[in-house]
Amino acid sequence: MQSKLLSRRDIDFLLYEWLDVEALNQRPRFQDHSRETFNAAIDTAEQIATDLFAPHNKKSDLQEPHAVPGEHCLEVKIIPEVKAALDAYVGAGLLAAGQDYELGGMQLPVTVEKVLAAYFTAANVSTTSYLFLTIGNANTLLKTGTPEQVRRYVRPMFEGRFFGTMCLSEPQAGSSLSDITTRADADPVQGLDGERQYRLSGNKMWISAGEHDLAGNIVHLVLAKIPGADGKLIPGVKGISLFIVPKFLVNEDGTLGERNDVVLAGLNHKMGNRGTSNCLLNFGEGKFKPQGKGGAIGYLVGNPHQGLANMFHMMNEARIGVGAGAAVLGYTGYLHSLDYARNRPQGRHPAAKDPAQPQLPIMAHTDVRRMLLAQKAYSEGALALVLYSSRLVDEQQTAATPEAREHAGRLLDFLTPITKSWPSQWCVEANSLAIQVHGGYGYTREYNVEQFYRDNRLNAIHEGTHGIHGLDLLGRKVAMQDGALFKALAGQVRKTVDRAASANPQHALSAELRVQADALAAALRRITHVTQALYAAGDMNKTLANASTYLEAMGHIVVAWMWLEQAVVAAGALAAGAAGDDANFYQGKLQACRYFFRWELPKVQQQLELLESIDTTTLDMQDAWF
Amino acid sequence: MQSKLLSRRDIDFLLYEWLDVEALNQRPRFQDHSRETFNAAIDTAEQIATDLFAPHNKKSDLQEPHAVPGEHCLEVKIIPEVKAALDAYVGAGLLAAGQDYELGGMQLPVTVEKVLAAYFTAANVSTTSYLFLTIGNANTLLKTGTPEQVRRYVRPMFEGRFFGTMCLSEPQAGSSLSDITTRADADPVQGLDGERQYRLSGNKMWISAGEHDLAGNIVHLVLAKIPGADGKLIPGVKGISLFIVPKFLVNEDGTLGERNDVVLAGLNHKMGNRGTSNCLLNFGEGKFKPQGKGGAIGYLVGNPHQGLANMFHMMNEARIGVGAGAAVLGYTGYLHSLDYARNRPQGRHPAAKDPAQPQLPIMAHTDVRRMLLAQKAYSEGALALVLYSSRLVDEQQTAATPEAREHAGRLLDFLTPITKSWPSQWCVEANSLAIQVHGGYGYTREYNVEQFYRDNRLNAIHEGTHGIHGLDLLGRKVAMQDGALFKALAGQVRKTVDRAASANPQHALSAELRVQADALAAALRRITHVTQALYAAGDMNKTLANASTYLEAMGHIVVAWMWLEQAVVAAGALAAGAAGDDANFYQGKLQACRYFFRWELPKVQQQLELLESIDTTTLDMQDAWF
Repeated sequence: MQSKLLSRRDIDFLLYEWLDVEALNQRPRFQDHSRETFNAAIDTAEQIATDLFAPHNKKSDLQEPHAVPGEHCLEVKIIPEVKAALDAYVGAGLLAAGQDYELGGMQLPVTVEKVLAAYFTAANVSTTSYLFLTIGNANTLLKTGTPEQVRRYVRPMFEGRFFGTMCLSEPQAGSSLSDITTRADADPVQGLDGERQYRLSGNKMWISAGEHDLAGNIVHLVLAKIPGADGKLIPGVKGISLFIVPKFLVNEDGTLGERNDVVLAGLNHKMGNRGTSNCLLNFGEGKFKPQGKGGAIGYLVGNPHQGLANMFHMMNEARIGVGAGAAVLGYTGYLHSLDYARNRPQGRHPAAKDPAQPQLPIMAHTDVRRMLLAQKAYSEGALALVLYSSRLVDEQQTAATPEAREHAGRLLDFLTPITKSWPSQWCVEANSLAIQVHGGYGYTREYNVEQFYRDNRLNAIHEGTHGIHGLDLLGRKVAMQDGALFKALAGQVRKTVDRAASANPQHALSAELRVQADALAAALRRITHVTQALYAAGDMNKTLANASTYLEAMGHIVVAWMWLEQAVVAAGALAAGAAGDDANFYQGKLQACRYFFRWELPKVQQQLELLESIDTTTLDMQDAWF
Repeated sequence: MQSKLLSRRDIDFLLYEWLDVEALNQRPRFQDHSRETFNAAIDTAEQIATDLFAPHNKKSDLQEPHAVPGEHCLEVKIIPEVKAALDAYVGAGLLAAGQDYELGGMQLPVTVEKVLAAYFTAANVSTTSYLFLTIGNANTLLKTGTPEQVRRYVRPMFEGRFFGTMCLSEPQAGSSLSDITTRADADPVQGLDGERQYRLSGNKMWISAGEHDLAGNIVHLVLAKIPGADGKLIPGVKGISLFIVPKFLVNEDGTLGERNDVVLAGLNHKMGNRGTSNCLLNFGEGKFKPQGKGGAIGYLVGNPHQGLANMFHMMNEARIGVGAGAAVLGYTGYLHSLDYARNRPQGRHPAAKDPAQPQLPIMAHTDVRRMLLAQKAYSEGALALVLYSSRLVDEQQTAATPEAREHAGRLLDFLTPITKSWPSQWCVEANSLAIQVHGGYGYTREYNVEQFYRDNRLNAIHEGTHGIHGLDLLGRKVAMQDGALFKALAGQVRKTVDRAASANPQHALSAELRVQADALAAALRRITHVTQALYAAGDMNKTLANASTYLEAMGHIVVAWMWLEQAVVAAGALAAGAAGDDANFYQGKLQACRYFFRWELPKVQQQLELLESIDTTTLDMQDAWF
């Protein structure tokens, strides 16, 4: 029975045949690694994900974390299967899979780490969230915290004894972080280790894993404002600093101390992602008096007023993580509907309707194959983009030359809003198609696909909404460093175009690759002109009015590029004589690429025409006209 | 406070300014009616929907109908608010709103009846389902049942004492009704009123309102096969007959008799539409022995072997009903997000980011207006299409000449798959945008919009899936009567084009209407050519391979037509000097039309190019390549 989480054959293709992850083993950081060690880690991940994460995915959807009154404050209860799964994950050492040996890690490349993560997310996005928030939190502290903060908070997180959160949003400040009002007043008392101690007060909203019974302590990373000399908060993002606020204070020897004054005010109840507790947290409400005083004790991370910049280390990682989550939810939905389509008999061919003959598996209907092929194109395309971006993180961190690292960084910065947003849009569409393939069954909670659809709908909202990433791409990224990020992308796409145009000149597939290369090159030229036209509008309100459409058009061009990259590899393998299951696999890649170039990329035309015309339909719309 | 169900201003516009429903009052059937009587009925519907249907919409989502063991079989319990709402609806005489006076009806036009229905569906689609299934069932029996069947089953349904269902699908036969295996064996015993009695046995799946505690009796309309002389079932649709199977037998005097042998086997648990019990029913399982014998007693409706044709009276009505439900879920989601956008402060303009200034309502952000305008274009466009189709039903039933009735029938037949499918696709998209406007709040069950999104996703599945309506449109409707249906549509669209091109030649808006008229005319010409090209392919597998895409392209053209129709009226009213709120309303209609012609109609280009190329990407895809 083939896994319905992810296709291992595809993972092998992406890692070893396309992204050449084995080449990383030449670099000092990864020199102990080989394809065998990568595969062993992936085997472990697939096994634990299959055995311990997937089985309770539906149960945690139906039996959400719930708040119960504790002795002093509300507590959150979570079904025991979650802790069992997390323990297995921690026990296998996976929390620190990408970390340095000295932190107890395995020094796996980010690209491989993302594949491990993909298995867990495909199996159970809610349970996995507790882990990934912890990893993101720990990575932020590794970058910006003091050695003492690393010792006291990061090490226990990698050991799975503490879990982490990121506390940004407030009820009145979601997308607009400059408007947060949580304050951090300097405490005259010094922290135990001499670091400056603050007292935090305020409310934080949408805090995933903000309270639970899964780990001994919770390390909150909190954005708050240090007031000026007049005691007032500085308006805007400049006033924001970053703090560690542990649920329990941590003693010098690492044991847990007093309960800190951060408490659960209530849970949000989401349409999907129900297994992750999502909390409204009160800081400094007075339920607890750590060190005999009001206010949640917090420790400054990095410099004051640099909070947003420090947190953005975590945000960029989180954004690729969101794209990855969206991609694999699309992917597992695709595999579920593929299995259903092969096994569900229903109907006959339009040209052979004899009802005395047995019904055909629905795979035999062209429209069902359309829905499967679209899902394949969306989810495999999205996963390719996510792993390509992850490979860029590896390049950024370990490439041999500063130029190569800088180039990777530029590409990565440009691609981040797309890697976050494109899967969040199109893999929800894939999940919708997975439901449609199942017909009425797919719409019921007796099957799995409706949950994927609900879970996945979150991804266009959190870690920056779709609209905000449009503004990030068109308003910042394309113009940054005098267009250097855009140029990095364009140069890279052109390399693929050249490679595709000259690949296997003798082979029958080469003509088609050339056609696709031409189409991609034309789309790239077109969006370059359109970008210039948008900036020539001379009014940023007009330039940015349709930024979401720009993001979507650029996303389709980028994913077309990802498909052409894959097609070149697949065509090469077929030209080299691949046979049997392998040949079928490569044919599938080529057909999905064909689908993308025939059905999807042409959609960009209408978007680019609209953008080029500096369309003001939405800008001109007035409140009173609604 | 403006209603968040539907805009009454828009309803007035659609009924009186556009569809000229008042003109129907010239016809004998509607001669007692006037704009005042229509408005009084709409007032009543809006009031009851607002007061009794909307308030428990969330509660029935959270506390679904559940099965409990009864004395002899499973029974279904439903929260009491549902019965209270249904009682009010029944008490207001609305079940028979469109029926003849002699049946206790009001003889309202179908167009007005659909507006009443729209208010209830917008308020609570689940509770409303019990009513509309009953009306559909009753209408079917009125068309095909005997006077005695009407007396015994239909009258109690219009009085709200009995509710009705339609039992088509079986676990192994959903879309493929030819494969049903429920059998109906002739019973040697005569029915009480001399009608031939049958004994039914089999299982029916997805039966909405199949069991509940809301009415004294349930009248199931059941498709089953009468075996041939050899005792075997005839394969295919030809063997299918239609039967009345009441939950309780009905005595000559209308009182309830014995419990019939149709029992609940279990409930399906859906992603949305949770308030409607959705049942697996067993017929003739032996739990009850009516008249001392096994088998559920059923009474033949109409002629044997005509079951599918008889049921299709109900199906066509149900399909327009599905489109209407999808449209108004889109509509209420739009109004919810509009209200949120006006009241939620968040962020500032890109060009004026001073954080010391207060935040703006999110309506001020262009991307939010885009999402609202798209919702307006989708949901108002969909509602226009639904009411236009309903107006055709009125024409088909009451137009003065046979030619006019036939013309309306052709248009209606052509539009039915579109009226069902287009809202089911685009108003889910509208609901997704309503969530997006709400940000994280929209994703929680503390707000309403996520439920609309879940509820609405059903509509592309039931009453014929999206793919099946594609086949119906391209495979049947366009070719029927030598293309007469297509010609009827094309002729009607051209009339609008001519009207738009010649409207208000002095007015500033006329140039824009002409541009839109030209675009619509061009799209119509194009799809006409593409249809011919598809039929010239010479292989029905190729012709029909991309029928879903054809349905979508035709849908966008049809809705562009609906928008141009509305724009002509709005431009006329502005030219005539509309002012104040009225002027704003008409400007909104024009802006939504503009949006549709600039942002939506051009999407058809890519679809038509794909179709014209007789693309075989999906047809060629092989199972082994997935």
